[in-house]
Amino acid sequence: MPYSPAEYRGLTFHDAAARFSTGDDTPRAYLERCLATISVREPEVKAWACLNEKGAREAADAATTRYRAGAPLSPIDGLPIGIKDLLETHDMPTEMGCDAYRGNFPKRDNAAVWALRQAGAIILGKTVTTELGGTHPPPTKNPFNAAHTPGGSSSGSAAAVAASMAPACIGTQVGGSIIRPASYCGNVAFKPTQGAINRGERQATSQSTHGVHANCVEDMWQVAIEIAKRAGGDPGCMALFGPSKPPPAQRPLVVGVMESEGWTLLNEADIAAFDGILDQLRTAGVIVLRRSSQPMLETFERAIAGCSTLGNTITAWENHWNFRNLVAQYPDGVSFRTKSVITTAESLGPDGYRALVLQRQEIRAKHAALAPVVDALIAPASPGPAPKIVQDQPDNPIARPTGNSVFNVPSSVLGAPVVNLPLTAVGGLPMGIQILGQPHTDARCAAYARWMIETLTPVVV
Amino acid sequence: MPYSPAEYRGLTFHDAAARFSTGDDTPRAYLERCLATISVREPEVKAWACLNEKGAREAADAATTRYRAGAPLSPIDGLPIGIKDLLETHDMPTEMGCDAYRGNFPKRDNAAVWALRQAGAIILGKTVTTELGGTHPPPTKNPFNAAHTPGGSSSGSAAAVAASMAPACIGTQVGGSIIRPASYCGNVAFKPTQGAINRGERQATSQSTHGVHANCVEDMWQVAIEIAKRAGGDPGCMALFGPSKPPPAQRPLVVGVMESEGWTLLNEADIAAFDGILDQLRTAGVIVLRRSSQPMLETFERAIAGCSTLGNTITAWENHWNFRNLVAQYPDGVSFRTKSVITTAESLGPDGYRALVLQRQEIRAKHAALAPVVDALIAPASPGPAPKIVQDQPDNPIARPTGNSVFNVPSSVLGAPVVNLPLTAVGGLPMGIQILGQPHTDARCAAYARWMIETLTPVVV
Repeated sequence: MPYSPAEYRGLTFHDAAARFSTGDDTPRAYLERCLATISVREPEVKAWACLNEKGAREAADAATTRYRAGAPLSPIDGLPIGIKDLLETHDMPTEMGCDAYRGNFPKRDNAAVWALRQAGAIILGKTVTTELGGTHPPPTKNPFNAAHTPGGSSSGSAAAVAASMAPACIGTQVGGSIIRPASYCGNVAFKPTQGAINRGERQATSQSTHGVHANCVEDMWQVAIEIAKRAGGDPGCMALFGPSKPPPAQRPLVVGVMESEGWTLLNEADIAAFDGILDQLRTAGVIVLRRSSQPMLETFERAIAGCSTLGNTITAWENHWNFRNLVAQYPDGVSFRTKSVITTAESLGPDGYRALVLQRQEIRAKHAALAPVVDALIAPASPGPAPKIVQDQPDNPIARPTGNSVFNVPSSVLGAPVVNLPLTAVGGLPMGIQILGQPHTDARCAAYARWMIETLTPVVV
Repeated sequence: MPYSPAEYRGLTFHDAAARFSTGDDTPRAYLERCLATISVREPEVKAWACLNEKGAREAADAATTRYRAGAPLSPIDGLPIGIKDLLETHDMPTEMGCDAYRGNFPKRDNAAVWALRQAGAIILGKTVTTELGGTHPPPTKNPFNAAHTPGGSSSGSAAAVAASMAPACIGTQVGGSIIRPASYCGNVAFKPTQGAINRGERQATSQSTHGVHANCVEDMWQVAIEIAKRAGGDPGCMALFGPSKPPPAQRPLVVGVMESEGWTLLNEADIAAFDGILDQLRTAGVIVLRRSSQPMLETFERAIAGCSTLGNTITAWENHWNFRNLVAQYPDGVSFRTKSVITTAESLGPDGYRALVLQRQEIRAKHAALAPVVDALIAPASPGPAPKIVQDQPDNPIARPTGNSVFNVPSSVLGAPVVNLPLTAVGGLPMGIQILGQPHTDARCAAYARWMIETLTPVVV
């Protein structure tokens, strides 16, 4: 059955907690429903690297007791959540989708995982990632059509939320690893401002963040803010700014369309879907600027024209220190795609890296110059819906088996907050619309997103 | 025999390499002399957590072959170097001076260690650190008087260089962990601009750096630049700027005295030693400004007045994620001093941390305002020479067994480059003089340092 954004109702949590307090529902019962869904969908979807059913049930019972006593730890007390298998969890292995990490079990909690536990969330399991968060694909399938990819690298997190196996999951994005799979899987998802959520042990890269996959803005924001309230931001960074409850819906006055390098990859149906959203924005009184009419947008577009290569090369350099050690120790434990990252990095060198970081600073300045021009940028969150899963041919490997991050790398390079909205469907699969803000306008992006979801009619092409 | 800065000649390397090329000396013979010194001094000094004599001899033989072929890899090819035991090395354990890490052997190379190997340096061993780079003391003794501390946390690196067991060692500084032990041990030492040398896996803290302990500016600079040329800086940061050879001596025009919170801890002898250096600077034509005569220096001093608590609290927050996991897994594996860091962090919380980071930004702005006023700041590198080693009493533990970092935290908080110069002795032990510059003026600081060493007469009080 094709995906219909108007009919699809993913599992949410914020509207369940009230019934925990009255006793009409319990966190344990909520968890059991998640586990039941998992037992039905997981054999096909393959979203989980590991489940901790026993630990989850114990945590759910503890949450149930707290609600009975009228003393939940937070608005997400009892929320079952999946953790992308790049983050350490003290009670489950962290295998990073990589043979070299099979059996890796450091028995530590990532700062965000610790914060979630403190807030009463139930760490249900680890979700599948592409190998080391890169491009080498995982076994996970798109829940709306198993012949298609869920996207990556937060493949399992996006798919688990889409399949209602959990109301929220933690993803990470260094290029397009939260927003692209969210686009393909119809999630509401949030990649915050660079540094706004503490990455704990995962500080190796300068343009990566933790983020949240959910089925509504309310759950998305609540999970993010509960982490930030307890774990703060990255070392030296400002933690997530914003209210302790989901921000109310807010209509933007002016949005600018970000075409980016991805524009030429859109087909007619994709553009028609996106235009359908823009038309509704105009009808609702929002001014929509384009690069053709606003010279500062054109200047910005020219600045981000090489963003994909820039961003991916910066990340290659930053990741290759770990990758090099892995290959030295486990020559057969990583894929040819990860090995190619080392090659990219070694041909760059420290001077090349420094030049790219300087170039990134210039791009960020061009983005900052847009602050008085547009309230936010809007763009498709992926070049169309999820592509079909295709197996590598020995002599012709697929460059991007989990889809192209070309629409996502700009927000990563900019360190900018971005929210994905499941507002369009193309060919029976979701295609997300993304809202990007200036750094530290995360709450405003969430408010715009909430307004769009509450106001606009999803477009099906 | 008391330490005499005029007579002490520590082991250097830059002046040995010429003889490798002629065949009058070899890297292997140089290494054997280091090992001979170690066999004599190590039983008392206890500078090494681990030695890799076999690996070092193999690496020295390879270097010897390269010199014979007229093809050394770099000016530090064949340089035996110790690595502070916080950094990972693929061929030795990384135990971090902490029971919880006993047997930890990740078989990975820190980026800087990898770079050193690429440059032909000989990774001789791991040097002793205080527990986790904090305040809990190690067994290491001051090579000039075993009743005194070598300082910390880079205790073994400072002591090994002072005892001529190696011409250079890698240290790390988050508060005062390079410059204070260098001051106590009479090293020439360098803590670079924040981010200027890639810390590899050690990215958890926002004001820590790798740095170099040596016996001359030439070796100090050469080791640093060879690492930066290959491993670059931290993610998102500008790598060390400066020439590929040690910068020539340069006389500063104007220096400003930084009194900091440490000033009140100096006794008459300490001040007399420092004044002896200032007098010589004036005689040599350098303008020396004081807070009493230059209002912008006074403004700066007021800004850094709470620096020690600020800096140490920021670091406590950043380190406590790892410390908390350690204590959870190994309750008896860490000291009460490390446990107290967790308490400090938990009472701070994310909002408190954010406020401190903002305060740090303001202090850095005050420092930046000094750029047109002084070429560099000058200060004692420690509040006097190394204190005596005193054992904890059960009910009265020593707060700072490896000495007080009060003169060092400012440069860490400022992210500023600093060089320690062994230019004074007080009571028969070294007391360093430090030169601090603006961020990214590392090479200029080294040039000033070189000029001071070549021009000034050490002061003995």
